[in-house]
Amino acid sequence: MSDVEQLRQQMEKQGDLVRELKAARAEKAQVDAQVAVLLALKDKLKIASGGGEAEAPKKKGSGGGEAFVLKVPKGTKDYSPKEMSVRTEIFRTIVSVFEKHGAVTIDTPVFELKEVLVGKYGEDSKLIYDLKDQGGEECSLRYDLTVPFARYVALNKIANIKRYHLAKVYRRDQPAITKGRMREFYQCDFDIAGSYDAMIPDAECVRVAVDVLSQLDVGKFVIKLNHRKILDAIFEVSGVPADKVRAISSAVDKLDKVSWAEVRREMTDEKGLDAAVADRIGEYVQISGNGEVVLAQLQALPELMASTKAQEGVKDMGLFFKYAKIYGILDHVSFDMSLARGLDYYTGVIYEAVLVEENVRPATTEAPAAASTKKSSKKGKGDDEDESQVRVGSIAAGGRYDGLVGMFSSTMHAKGKKTDVPCVGISFGVERIFSLVMARKEKQEIKANRTQVYVISFGDKSENSLLEERMRIAAELWDAGIAAEFAYKLVPRRDAQYDACDKSVIPWAVIIGNTEIDQGVVKIKNMAHKDELEKDGVVVARSLMVAELKQRLQI
Amino acid sequence: MSDVEQLRQQMEKQGDLVRELKAARAEKAQVDAQVAVLLALKDKLKIASGGGEAEAPKKKGSGGGEAFVLKVPKGTKDYSPKEMSVRTEIFRTIVSVFEKHGAVTIDTPVFELKEVLVGKYGEDSKLIYDLKDQGGEECSLRYDLTVPFARYVALNKIANIKRYHLAKVYRRDQPAITKGRMREFYQCDFDIAGSYDAMIPDAECVRVAVDVLSQLDVGKFVIKLNHRKILDAIFEVSGVPADKVRAISSAVDKLDKVSWAEVRREMTDEKGLDAAVADRIGEYVQISGNGEVVLAQLQALPELMASTKAQEGVKDMGLFFKYAKIYGILDHVSFDMSLARGLDYYTGVIYEAVLVEENVRPATTEAPAAASTKKSSKKGKGDDEDESQVRVGSIAAGGRYDGLVGMFSSTMHAKGKKTDVPCVGISFGVERIFSLVMARKEKQEIKANRTQVYVISFGDKSENSLLEERMRIAAELWDAGIAAEFAYKLVPRRDAQYDACDKSVIPWAVIIGNTEIDQGVVKIKNMAHKDELEKDGVVVARSLMVAELKQRLQI
Repeated sequence: MSDVEQLRQQMEKQGDLVRELKAARAEKAQVDAQVAVLLALKDKLKIASGGGEAEAPKKKGSGGGEAFVLKVPKGTKDYSPKEMSVRTEIFRTIVSVFEKHGAVTIDTPVFELKEVLVGKYGEDSKLIYDLKDQGGEECSLRYDLTVPFARYVALNKIANIKRYHLAKVYRRDQPAITKGRMREFYQCDFDIAGSYDAMIPDAECVRVAVDVLSQLDVGKFVIKLNHRKILDAIFEVSGVPADKVRAISSAVDKLDKVSWAEVRREMTDEKGLDAAVADRIGEYVQISGNGEVVLAQLQALPELMASTKAQEGVKDMGLFFKYAKIYGILDHVSFDMSLARGLDYYTGVIYEAVLVEENVRPATTEAPAAASTKKSSKKGKGDDEDESQVRVGSIAAGGRYDGLVGMFSSTMHAKGKKTDVPCVGISFGVERIFSLVMARKEKQEIKANRTQVYVISFGDKSENSLLEERMRIAAELWDAGIAAEFAYKLVPRRDAQYDACDKSVIPWAVIIGNTEIDQGVVKIKNMAHKDELEKDGVVVARSLMVAELKQRLQI
Repeated sequence: MSDVEQLRQQMEKQGDLVRELKAARAEKAQVDAQVAVLLALKDKLKIASGGGEAEAPKKKGSGGGEAFVLKVPKGTKDYSPKEMSVRTEIFRTIVSVFEKHGAVTIDTPVFELKEVLVGKYGEDSKLIYDLKDQGGEECSLRYDLTVPFARYVALNKIANIKRYHLAKVYRRDQPAITKGRMREFYQCDFDIAGSYDAMIPDAECVRVAVDVLSQLDVGKFVIKLNHRKILDAIFEVSGVPADKVRAISSAVDKLDKVSWAEVRREMTDEKGLDAAVADRIGEYVQISGNGEVVLAQLQALPELMASTKAQEGVKDMGLFFKYAKIYGILDHVSFDMSLARGLDYYTGVIYEAVLVEENVRPATTEAPAAASTKKSSKKGKGDDEDESQVRVGSIAAGGRYDGLVGMFSSTMHAKGKKTDVPCVGISFGVERIFSLVMARKEKQEIKANRTQVYVISFGDKSENSLLEERMRIAAELWDAGIAAEFAYKLVPRRDAQYDACDKSVIPWAVIIGNTEIDQGVVKIKNMAHKDELEKDGVVVARSLMVAELKQRLQI
């Protein structure tokens, strides 16, 4: 990378960091410090690029050798082979749990008709990526996998399905360096659609979350639970006007990011809520902890329990905790009145899994400056956790959404009767899990290929190349299902071939020279253990090579 | 699906078919027949929808229950669980071959900066999907995986890599019903980048193609080969002016779709080529067949061999066929002067794999009308194959592109020296392979889930539900890594539970009733073979249930 380009990338990251700090209303001193870093980078860049404007990559097309800064779009990233090896392993673990619970998988297009996404995401709709209108239909990139799933269920008139879907989703959000928040990122979703008895699929979704997070070994986590109906009842009995419920709910949802004082200020100053009403809400949303304890606490509040909604929600949660006990997941869950979840479509139980350990590490793409900022602004655990802590911590979320499929069914049948298919599901945010696993693995050697054997030749003369013999051996290995490589050179250097084995962590080598060819043998050498007993390899007849290797590879 | 909606979809497909026939300059009678079908559908739709305009779905947003036709965007499709099961298996086979040849995998964003794609696809650039400019960078969906790969290699300054990438690409093409041509579709690419000795990686790419197509069992196929330099020499010695070479090359590329007479007409009438020049080209492009025979034919043409380019190309192909022989793939390849390949970036060997069997079946999404048209317009094999035959037949293609990475390196280093990384690769068009495999599998039962055990309870009374016991057993099975399901009902019907096993092809059942609970046992029953010896299942102690199942499942 050229100096100029490196500086530009640093500057861009620093700019993101500053915007992010401002958005999070960080302390002025902290913002000023980072702005100073940004200005210093700007100066450096001006010098390095020979003066002139430094902010934006220049767009001059790719012809003629003019510079546009080659990069991936903002908020997206490439995955290297080693990263892909880790990602594939994470996906394999997640899929194995989903399949253990009987789920099938589907795939849907990366873009949907714009109408499908309209009116599903509330305020966040502004983050939807639209395709340019190039003649034809208006389309948008999917924002999540839940709405396309509901569309799929409605379009195909499916009465029940348990499906998983691992795919990328797209949000035109401000990419957040400290939080691993990307514009293109994977979601891994597990959902159960169908009319069933209360809370049975709901409890299984949370069990799936526990299974996945335990098997991925991401550290200690807790799954916060709440119920939309209880939350609605709280707002009702606190005296929130009906037209303010969504706005107030979205303010409460920020309690994992900002203090109660700040949320209260937003409710009263920005959203015009009566101070006494806000204070009543404040008392309710502090309630959290062990399921049965919280249930008892709620049932001891006659004002709240007078609400039918509260009764329904409490009854659901009673069942939920009974089933959660059978599933052995009580240790991992917490019943938390401050959990509100942003999306409009939830109708029942809602949940969010957060990491509670100090093992919350920065994303691998993070700039050093950002990492230190994050650490310095970290305050502690619990309800006072600061933004960076909680945001990196949140790794899965979901809930029940009984009305979403019906929204499509009703639009589909102009005259028709509306058919609801109740759904509940959980979505894993894999980028964060990926960062954690990568951080843990970095010290180890990651083998990105699956090559088992490297075919080496010695003593080649350019007039008497052994290339063809290496090719012949490789073809024989491929035919036998053995993964094999060799140097794509007529006369490769001895060292280069050994280096290739080391670099690609290839466990076995087949070695030939003129002597071996004359005698009709090959040398087989263990490159992984560099076995002292077989330091120079073992010599086997060429005709026994495949059998010998299969035995050593245990295939 | 409502009648109106069904009609609309039929009409849309029929419209596509008509446009397609026109574009392919089909016989007038054939076009007229399909237009008549279209008009009849239009009339039907007018009646069904109660008169009024019938062409386009009305856009009224999704609110208020107004009808917009719920569907996926044109040229895209959903994959059902059974289709996904088949697709996953195809991918697994392809990946296993790629990994057998030592490839690692990477991932790149689904969209790239617009500048990255500009100037790479010639005339086809008009098919690129752009994202709407919503403030920020201008981006486009990837058109293939080759250009993003070259961008990745340049951006990360990689000197050599052998990588595979399975991902969706996007083309705003007219979706072609008869050809399985989609706007969103998967490509499976294998590429070798790096400076190596001539034709070694090239021959391996074709070996990879043979391995993949053989293992997927798609029927008889042939891989047509040619060399860009030989083709350029042919145009040169035939007397094509330098500024017409690309246009003439793209006309020749149509020889697998239309007759020589038609291509000749395009060259002379549309592209203003001298008739004598066209005739000279005509003689060259007829040459095809066995590699060594064609090489000898070319070498016997002094006019052609006077060209340095032809000499270089012939030398390359000589090496290629030598290596292809060692790799045991000569039976699958044909050296064909009429293969031109559309894309600009190829610089050396080019190839395309086509099916030659009558097993070329229509895509599963195809409408019946389209299928019969396709069959009736099918003429035969060889160079006279009609469009539908060849297009469905083409299932993989690729070649050498030595300049593409350099295009990015030069844009990256404003002052810098240009670094070329020579590349060669192959891309599999999976939708077509998928259609073939699906068509073959349709009669068989496809198990889309991996559930091993279904937990059944009998004799539940609503006052004495066995739900919790089923949950307890399922949790125990999950803990042991066994994939298990049960009915999400308090009191499920006996038949419904058996039906669930059959429908999901679940091989084993654990059955409990009040008797079994009292005695501390469970019944284990084979649901797949319905074993006569164990017709009613075997009774085992509850404590031995997991061990017994593991033994039967061989895990």
